[in-house]
Amino acid sequence: MRTLILSLSLLLSVMTTNAAVKVDRIDPTNWFVGMKNPSLQLMVYGEGIRSAEVTTDYAGVKVDSIVRLDSPNYLLVYLNLEGAQPGEMTLNFKDGKSTKKVKYQLKAREKRGEERMGFTNADVLYMLMPDRFADGDPKNNDIKGLNAYKTDRTQPSLRHGGDLEGIRQHLDYFTKLGVTALWFTPVLENNSPDNNGQSTYHGYATTDYYRVDPRFGTNEEYRRLCDEAHSKGLKVVMDMIFNHCGFEHPWVSDMPSKDWLNTPEWLAARQDKTKPEVNDKYLQTSYKLTPVVDPYASDVDLRETVDGWFVPTMPDLNQRNPHVITYLIQNSEWWIETVGIDGIRMDTYPYADATAMAKWMKTLDEEYPNFNVVGETWVTEPAYTAAWQKDSKVAKENSYLKTVMDFSFFDKVNMAKKEDTDDWWNGYNRLYNNFVYDYLYPNPSSVMAFIENHDTDRFLGKGKDSTALKQALALLLTVNRTPQLYYGTEILMNGTKEVTDGNVRKDFPGGFAGDSKNAFTGAGMTKAENAMFTWLSRLLHWRQGNDVVIKGSQKQFIPYKGVYVVARQYNGKNVMTVINGTKKPATLAVNRYAEVIGAAKSAKDVLTDSTVNLAADVQLQPRQVLVLEF
Amino acid sequence: MRTLILSLSLLLSVMTTNAAVKVDRIDPTNWFVGMKNPSLQLMVYGEGIRSAEVTTDYAGVKVDSIVRLDSPNYLLVYLNLEGAQPGEMTLNFKDGKSTKKVKYQLKAREKRGEERMGFTNADVLYMLMPDRFADGDPKNNDIKGLNAYKTDRTQPSLRHGGDLEGIRQHLDYFTKLGVTALWFTPVLENNSPDNNGQSTYHGYATTDYYRVDPRFGTNEEYRRLCDEAHSKGLKVVMDMIFNHCGFEHPWVSDMPSKDWLNTPEWLAARQDKTKPEVNDKYLQTSYKLTPVVDPYASDVDLRETVDGWFVPTMPDLNQRNPHVITYLIQNSEWWIETVGIDGIRMDTYPYADATAMAKWMKTLDEEYPNFNVVGETWVTEPAYTAAWQKDSKVAKENSYLKTVMDFSFFDKVNMAKKEDTDDWWNGYNRLYNNFVYDYLYPNPSSVMAFIENHDTDRFLGKGKDSTALKQALALLLTVNRTPQLYYGTEILMNGTKEVTDGNVRKDFPGGFAGDSKNAFTGAGMTKAENAMFTWLSRLLHWRQGNDVVIKGSQKQFIPYKGVYVVARQYNGKNVMTVINGTKKPATLAVNRYAEVIGAAKSAKDVLTDSTVNLAADVQLQPRQVLVLEF
Repeated sequence: MRTLILSLSLLLSVMTTNAAVKVDRIDPTNWFVGMKNPSLQLMVYGEGIRSAEVTTDYAGVKVDSIVRLDSPNYLLVYLNLEGAQPGEMTLNFKDGKSTKKVKYQLKAREKRGEERMGFTNADVLYMLMPDRFADGDPKNNDIKGLNAYKTDRTQPSLRHGGDLEGIRQHLDYFTKLGVTALWFTPVLENNSPDNNGQSTYHGYATTDYYRVDPRFGTNEEYRRLCDEAHSKGLKVVMDMIFNHCGFEHPWVSDMPSKDWLNTPEWLAARQDKTKPEVNDKYLQTSYKLTPVVDPYASDVDLRETVDGWFVPTMPDLNQRNPHVITYLIQNSEWWIETVGIDGIRMDTYPYADATAMAKWMKTLDEEYPNFNVVGETWVTEPAYTAAWQKDSKVAKENSYLKTVMDFSFFDKVNMAKKEDTDDWWNGYNRLYNNFVYDYLYPNPSSVMAFIENHDTDRFLGKGKDSTALKQALALLLTVNRTPQLYYGTEILMNGTKEVTDGNVRKDFPGGFAGDSKNAFTGAGMTKAENAMFTWLSRLLHWRQGNDVVIKGSQKQFIPYKGVYVVARQYNGKNVMTVINGTKKPATLAVNRYAEVIGAAKSAKDVLTDSTVNLAADVQLQPRQVLVLEF
Repeated sequence: MRTLILSLSLLLSVMTTNAAVKVDRIDPTNWFVGMKNPSLQLMVYGEGIRSAEVTTDYAGVKVDSIVRLDSPNYLLVYLNLEGAQPGEMTLNFKDGKSTKKVKYQLKAREKRGEERMGFTNADVLYMLMPDRFADGDPKNNDIKGLNAYKTDRTQPSLRHGGDLEGIRQHLDYFTKLGVTALWFTPVLENNSPDNNGQSTYHGYATTDYYRVDPRFGTNEEYRRLCDEAHSKGLKVVMDMIFNHCGFEHPWVSDMPSKDWLNTPEWLAARQDKTKPEVNDKYLQTSYKLTPVVDPYASDVDLRETVDGWFVPTMPDLNQRNPHVITYLIQNSEWWIETVGIDGIRMDTYPYADATAMAKWMKTLDEEYPNFNVVGETWVTEPAYTAAWQKDSKVAKENSYLKTVMDFSFFDKVNMAKKEDTDDWWNGYNRLYNNFVYDYLYPNPSSVMAFIENHDTDRFLGKGKDSTALKQALALLLTVNRTPQLYYGTEILMNGTKEVTDGNVRKDFPGGFAGDSKNAFTGAGMTKAENAMFTWLSRLLHWRQGNDVVIKGSQKQFIPYKGVYVVARQYNGKNVMTVINGTKKPATLAVNRYAEVIGAAKSAKDVLTDSTVNLAADVQLQPRQVLVLEF
């Protein structure tokens, strides 16, 4: 990267133009005083701004350095706010004889960093897609001046009109269900046209890191949603993407520096400069995440993984550029301070530069020690996942990432549902084996497990049979994990990605005008759908604040005659999750579990509120699940 | 365990019998002065010996304690040899009025412990079965007084007559081949009858820990073999078994203490006390090794794994009993001191008590810091194997076991031979993935890899095609591992376990009287067999002392268009192993490997001694392998 950090005298000597100073935008749009890290990067954008000089007389603020990148239209100003008080600071820009004063807000922090309490394994995260959940404000469905598709609910890949207001209006639904944290897919501006073969409704191609997409609402509405959620005991987890941005982000058409994006040479080589036309200089990520952990990784493989683009429409940010990662770090802090989120879910975590991401996590941890971030660590094996968790003893470097995602659990629970557990390698033996690997995790309770999400087939596939689903959910909600649900699981939403991702991202019934079914009220829902809600809600409320699941020790038994048992214990309280992982009746041989059952003669099945006799073997129906409490 | 450690006055008071003192045997049969650990356990065996008192006047020797176990016929005497000199010590036994003097040799050590240099990754181990390799002394084929089968070469499960003398007579064969260490299956007495459904030729059911089985030779012959091997630059690795002994070991019919064996209650419950008749008290090991690493393991599962017997004819020793593990530790030290072995291969490593085995390894490491032990860690996943290696950061406790066995490499190389590498999950992609996990190993170069052994199908299966075999061997001998070969690989010995284990343990041609083929001379061998020997011998000699393979850094490339490449580098010297893992012609795209090839324009293929042009892409035949040196 070519940057110029110049002293004032040298600065003056290079000023050759006299054009009027233009400042179109400053990121972050405001900042906060009293951060542990007193440094602030301002990215100033305006035609020709690169050659300007910047000063301020604001008490306690010092210009540390000014960085001029390759583009004439960016200027990075590094301030030190060490002794600053909240207030409106004036930034004085000067370019030759032209000057400009720009007001900039330095706000007071509402909370100390330590007070930002992140989600934990005491929470159950509920993941939803704002576009597909509920349309609370039909006025924002089509916004002029944005590139994106018109709202069209008949098209699985177009916007359907859901928004933050829709979520806010249904906060009581979540508390009724019994989840305690909401993670919704990205809500920042995703202003891409519909002619690049991309969808914008999912939000994974940010075009403005400081603005909620107007079709989802405003920054203020986001704040209001967080506040109201908090007042109801719900946390909010924000989905962010540091690996890439959207193709219509201004950084693409006017790249701040030549190394702002990875492998940008293909952009220059395009015939049509307005489109992500692939040419032979384009480097696609291999999607192979092994080089990042492999002690023998070749440079060529590691580069393909990390520097290759996820897709041509998602420019791959170069986090190794310290200005890029600083921009992104500040952005995450800004959203925490501004709307009060309780956690971050970071997309495509291992595809970004590991060292830069560790710097982000370490910085955030210093500023907000009780906050939590979950990384999308989409790797197949627990040994890989574990290397991504903070304080891993086997990783190349400490990631400082507190929570990782258990894709192995997801894989295995979705295989087990179709298999019988009698055979050592199949069925719930896979889950048993998955948890054996927990010795590799520095902190297994901060591993987020799930049975489906927006990128996978629904657990039910094309069916509606809840038998296997209940087993998977009972396990998910009682093991030593941080559980995550996906919207609609509770009402038997099904679908596969066979035809389109849209089939696993269907509209939530009752969230949209004219819906004949309403999951919020139960109206028009089938008996089975309402029963599923009731079943899951009971389990979720039982789990809330239940120390035996949250803090309890765990013990698991090798599946025996097709039955898999996981036990938790805390302060004399016991929970045993019992799964008949076969399609045949099976027997829980109670004597085999004496070390857990002890002198107990009966237990309560949490799922049905019925009493189970433990003085004799327990007969289990095909694929029956019990959550026994005693 | 009930033990009595009594003071002298108390001792006298419990002496009630006046029978003559009988001492039939003392283990160890002698000992050594000058060990770092001055303590010596003597296990004295003789009718009624339990009640005897023991003293000695030998200078520098002190009786630390006397331990009386449950059986009247054992006495454990713990001596401290702190200030003793070599010589013949007299042990004075006294029981009431009856006394007995027993001479006991305290020998001088021939070497300091530090001088015992174990095998390393600079070695290539050659594993053989003494019974199946060469019959050097036909006189010892049938020994009177031993229970075992007659020698019968027509029966795959009976003894064939091979012996230590047969190995000694062919030491030049190993140096000609180019291996540097010999590991042969157990040679200690395995005196079981043929009516228990067990074979004795394999030696894995020891009945005397201090005596070479007479059908293999004598302790003196073993020593002579080691000496001569050393004089030719060959190391010797001894196969030991601490997990279990043989059913005819005296410890079964006259158990020293009630907890000398695990789950002994089934022995008491037998109808016919002379046979290993299985009854409902018998506990079979589950063969599942997950509970040993599982942080959530239940007691019942862990007990089945570790305390369950491997088979009814192999009594499971209770290493948690400190007297048992001390006996075994001393035994291993005795063989090192007595015959001068350079390493130990420990059978069924994870089935024994992990804490006791760690104590063994730590003791041995203190006494012989440069010695090496490889444990048979027969687990499927690198993450499991790695937890067994010394200094693992993820294990429950430090095993102190320096070398572990890479069964995952074995599995994968045997899958890859039948598959194509084009697909990410298949073929040599499996090997690539196997090595990625090396971040889990504290010391990957001390991981012993192999492509076949006495418990597996031969790599060739029922065939004789060496194409895939050469790929596997080239990889095995150039990667960051300690390689192990199995006898006969070099002459295309094949076979599967389908019918009997004996089919993968066939007689080595030329080792037995009347053999029509002779692999030692090449006489009667097919052209292909002799060519294989020449091919492997060239590679092995090239590997000897070759620092690029022994000390070099390693780099591997994700298989690209079916071609897998592993590179080693040391002091400017490079080796690239190139494998076309498909059944079609393939191309090595040289530019992709520029970070290794650098400015080199050509390389030597070590396997054929031919020059390969690196200025252009290299065309590869189906399943071709190159070992390029430049």
